[in-house]
Amino acid sequence: MPLITEILAEASTLVEPDERERRLVSETAKRLLSVCRDEFQQLEGVVDISVEGSVAKDTWVKGKAEVDIFIHFKPEVGRQGLEAAVLSAGGRVIERLSGRHWLRYASHPYVEGEVSGIRVNIVGCFKAEPGRWISAVDRTPYHTAFVNSRLTPELRRDIRLFKGFLIGCGLYGAEIRVEGFSGYLSELLVLSHGGFLETVRRASSWRMPVFIDMAGRLRLEEALKLFPKAPLIFNDPVDPSRNVAAAVSESKLAEFILACKIFNSSPSLSFFQPPKPWGKELAADVGSRNLLGIAFTVERRQPPDILWGEIKHTLRGFARRLEKEGFQVYRCDAWQLSDEVVLLYELSSLSLPENVLKVGPPVWMDNSLEFIEKTMSRPNRVAGPWVEGERLYSIVRRDESSAEQLLRSWIKRREVAISKELLNSVERGEILTSRTGLVERLSRDKGHEALLREFLEGIATPIRHWIKRC
Amino acid sequence: MPLITEILAEASTLVEPDERERRLVSETAKRLLSVCRDEFQQLEGVVDISVEGSVAKDTWVKGKAEVDIFIHFKPEVGRQGLEAAVLSAGGRVIERLSGRHWLRYASHPYVEGEVSGIRVNIVGCFKAEPGRWISAVDRTPYHTAFVNSRLTPELRRDIRLFKGFLIGCGLYGAEIRVEGFSGYLSELLVLSHGGFLETVRRASSWRMPVFIDMAGRLRLEEALKLFPKAPLIFNDPVDPSRNVAAAVSESKLAEFILACKIFNSSPSLSFFQPPKPWGKELAADVGSRNLLGIAFTVERRQPPDILWGEIKHTLRGFARRLEKEGFQVYRCDAWQLSDEVVLLYELSSLSLPENVLKVGPPVWMDNSLEFIEKTMSRPNRVAGPWVEGERLYSIVRRDESSAEQLLRSWIKRREVAISKELLNSVERGEILTSRTGLVERLSRDKGHEALLREFLEGIATPIRHWIKRC
Repeated sequence: MPLITEILAEASTLVEPDERERRLVSETAKRLLSVCRDEFQQLEGVVDISVEGSVAKDTWVKGKAEVDIFIHFKPEVGRQGLEAAVLSAGGRVIERLSGRHWLRYASHPYVEGEVSGIRVNIVGCFKAEPGRWISAVDRTPYHTAFVNSRLTPELRRDIRLFKGFLIGCGLYGAEIRVEGFSGYLSELLVLSHGGFLETVRRASSWRMPVFIDMAGRLRLEEALKLFPKAPLIFNDPVDPSRNVAAAVSESKLAEFILACKIFNSSPSLSFFQPPKPWGKELAADVGSRNLLGIAFTVERRQPPDILWGEIKHTLRGFARRLEKEGFQVYRCDAWQLSDEVVLLYELSSLSLPENVLKVGPPVWMDNSLEFIEKTMSRPNRVAGPWVEGERLYSIVRRDESSAEQLLRSWIKRREVAISKELLNSVERGEILTSRTGLVERLSRDKGHEALLREFLEGIATPIRHWIKRC
Repeated sequence: MPLITEILAEASTLVEPDERERRLVSETAKRLLSVCRDEFQQLEGVVDISVEGSVAKDTWVKGKAEVDIFIHFKPEVGRQGLEAAVLSAGGRVIERLSGRHWLRYASHPYVEGEVSGIRVNIVGCFKAEPGRWISAVDRTPYHTAFVNSRLTPELRRDIRLFKGFLIGCGLYGAEIRVEGFSGYLSELLVLSHGGFLETVRRASSWRMPVFIDMAGRLRLEEALKLFPKAPLIFNDPVDPSRNVAAAVSESKLAEFILACKIFNSSPSLSFFQPPKPWGKELAADVGSRNLLGIAFTVERRQPPDILWGEIKHTLRGFARRLEKEGFQVYRCDAWQLSDEVVLLYELSSLSLPENVLKVGPPVWMDNSLEFIEKTMSRPNRVAGPWVEGERLYSIVRRDESSAEQLLRSWIKRREVAISKELLNSVERGEILTSRTGLVERLSRDKGHEALLREFLEGIATPIRHWIKRC
C-alpha cells in the first residue's frame, strides 16, 4: 500500500490547477471586473463590484473554475431594481467579452455564461450589515472574507483535496439533485479541522446528528432546536442562525461518513477520481429483477433545482403509493439526461398476490354486522368473514394486481402524488417493466444504458472506490 | 320474522330431553350409583358417592346426557390411592353393567364408559373444605350444590337454550380443541343474568376484557391482576381465586359476542342447530388459493386435550416460522379425523420473491465495512451495498423460495417449533399445496373434503346462521 503522503501528493496534481489555468482564470476575472465596472458603475445604487467564490479564495478544483462577479447594490434599489439591472447589464457584459449567456435562478435570477471556455456568473447582492440580510447571497462577500482571513497555502491545498475527494465520491454539490456538500461547507470543514486528513479522520467516527460550531457561539441543545431534522449542523460563522449544511441529506451524510471510514482503512488515489461508468455487460437475467420504470420528457425551461425538486417529490410519491398498495419497494432512483427523466424502482415483485386480506372491525364495534353484510355481498369475496382475536377478517380478490397496470390507473385517476408541473409529462410518459421492454428501451441510448447498469449494480459510489481492490 | 317467543318455544323442543330420555338417564344413574356403592363403599377412605354434573342439575341438552359419578375420598388416601381405586373398581362397575369403558385423563385419570348408550364417567375426588382443594375436581360437588340451590324450571329451560345456542354456534366446550364455554360457565352466565335472552342481550355489547362476579367478592382491578390475560373473567362463586372462563380464547369470546349481536338483530331457530356441512362444490379455481397443508398420522393413545395442545402449538409454530421467513399467513386451521391430523394455511403466495432486501448496519457502526466485504463476497449478491438514510442495504438471491420446499427443510433441520410428541408424525407426514395435489388428497375422504370446503369458505359458524338468510 502506498504511503498516505504519496497518495495525497499524487492527488494534489489532480486537483491543483496548473499555471496555464490559473493565468486564464485570473485574466478572465480581471476582464470581467473591468467590463462590469464599465457597465454597472454608472447605474444608480451600485456601491461595489467584487470577485467572490472559489476563484476569490483560490480554492477551486482543477478544471472546475467558475468566476463569480458580485454587483453590490444599496438596499434602497429594491429586489426588482436589482434584478432588472443585473439581467440587462449582465448580459451586455458577457456579450462585450464575446461569451454566451443565459438566465439562471437561485434565490433570485442571475446571469450565467461562458467566457473563454470558463463558466462565469454575474450575481446581484445588497450591501447589508451582518444579520440584516435582504437576499440570500448578501452573506457571500462575508463568507469570502471569513475564509480568506484564515487560509494558508497548506489549507488551500487541503481544501482542494477535500473537494476532489467529495467529487470523486459523488458527494459534492448542494443542488437538490445531489443533496451533498457545498463549496463553502467543504472549506469550513477543512478550516475547522485544520486539514484534509484530520477532517476525514474525524468524520469517519461521526454519528448523526453531527454538530460543528467553529465560532463556539451555539450550544448543542440550541442547535438541535434551531435545526431539528438536520443530520449535519454547521452553523455559519457569518450568521449563526443559518445551517451551512442544510442541503446535506441523511443518506449523503452517511455515504460521506462511510467514504471517510473506507479511505482511512484503505486509502487510494481512486477516491479523487469520479469512478468510471460501470463496465459490466447488462446481465442476461435482468428479467429476474423486478424493475418498474417511468420515462418521460420535460421542458428544460425550469431551473435545475426546481425541476429536481419536482422529480424527487414525484419519485417519492410513486414509492409511497406502491408501498401503500402492498408492494415492497427495495429502492428507487431517478436520473435526467437532457430532456428525458427516468424514475426507476426495484420491487420485491411486479405483481401483488391475487387475493388480499381485509381487516375488518373488532366484533364489539357497531359496524361489525355491516362489515359482514358488505363482505357477503362482494362479488370478489373469496373467504370469510371469520373472527381472529377480537376482529373480523375476510379475503377478497384484487381487481388489478400488476404494478404496471396499477401505475397507469393511478396516474389517470390522479391517485398518486405527482408534482403538478410534471403531471402532463408523466401522463404522456412510458411505463416499463423488466418484463415489458424496460431494458430494451433504455439500452437504445448509451447514457441511459450506463445509468441502468449502475442502478442494477446498486453499489454506492464511495464503496466502488474500495471494491475495485476487494 | 317469527316472534322471539315462538323461536324460543321451538328451540326448547330441540334442547329439552323427552320423557323417554329422562327416564333412561335417571335409571342409568340409579343403577350406576347402586353398583358403585357396592364396589367402592367397602374400600378404605371412601366417604361418599354422588351424581354430579348436568344430570345432577337437570341441565343437560337433549341427546347429550353424560352421567358423572363422583367417588369422594378422605384426603389421607392420597392421589395414588385414589387413582388406583377409581381405575380398578370403576372398570368393574361398568363391566357389571355390561358397558364398555376406557381410561381418560383430565387433571387426573378417570374412567369413561358407555352404559345403555349413555356416556358415563366415574371420577374420584377428595372430600375437601372450600379453599383447601387437593385435586381440581374437588370443587365439583360444591358447583352442583351452588347451581341447584338457585335453579328454577324457567332457568333450567334457559340454561338448556343457552347451551343449545352455544353448541349451534360451535362455542360449547372447554377442551383445548374448542377453547369455548364449559357447561358450568354456561349455567353461571344464565344464572347471573337471570335468563337466556338477558344473557344474549347483555353479551352482545360486551367488550374485552369482560368481568363478571356473581358474588360481588372481587373488584375489577383485583380481577385484572389475578387473571391478566383472560378475555373473559367469571370468578367461581365457589372459589373466587379461580376463573371459570379460563379456557375461553379471545377469538371464541369474540365469536360469542358476534353470535349474540347477530341473534339479537336477526333471531332464528337456526342458531340452535349446528350448521350443516358446507354444501357447495369445491370451487374449480381452488388452485388460485394459496393453500399449504401438512397431513400426518398420530397414535391415538394420547388424551385429546394433550394431543390438541400439541396440534395447536405446532400449528402456531409453522405460522410463526412462515411469517418470519417473509410469507404472509392470512389464516390457519387444524382438524383431526380419527388418526389423521391436517394443518392448513392460507398464504398470500406459495413462494417468496426470488430476491430479498438485506438490511445492513448503520454506517457509523463498527461492522459497516464488514457488511460491505461480506456482501461483495456473496455468490448470491444481486445489488448493493448502497446507503439509504443512515443504513447499508443490499439485495441477495434466495436459495429457496417455495413454501413447500422451505417447510420440508425446516422440518428436516428442526428449524420450526413442532411439539416433540408430534415430531416423528410430522416428519413422516405429507406436505401439500393447492398446486400439488392438496385438494385431490383431501377429497379422497368425505370428512376431509367437508372440512376443506368449510376452510375454503372461511365463514365463522355464528355468521353462517345469519347469511343463510342474507
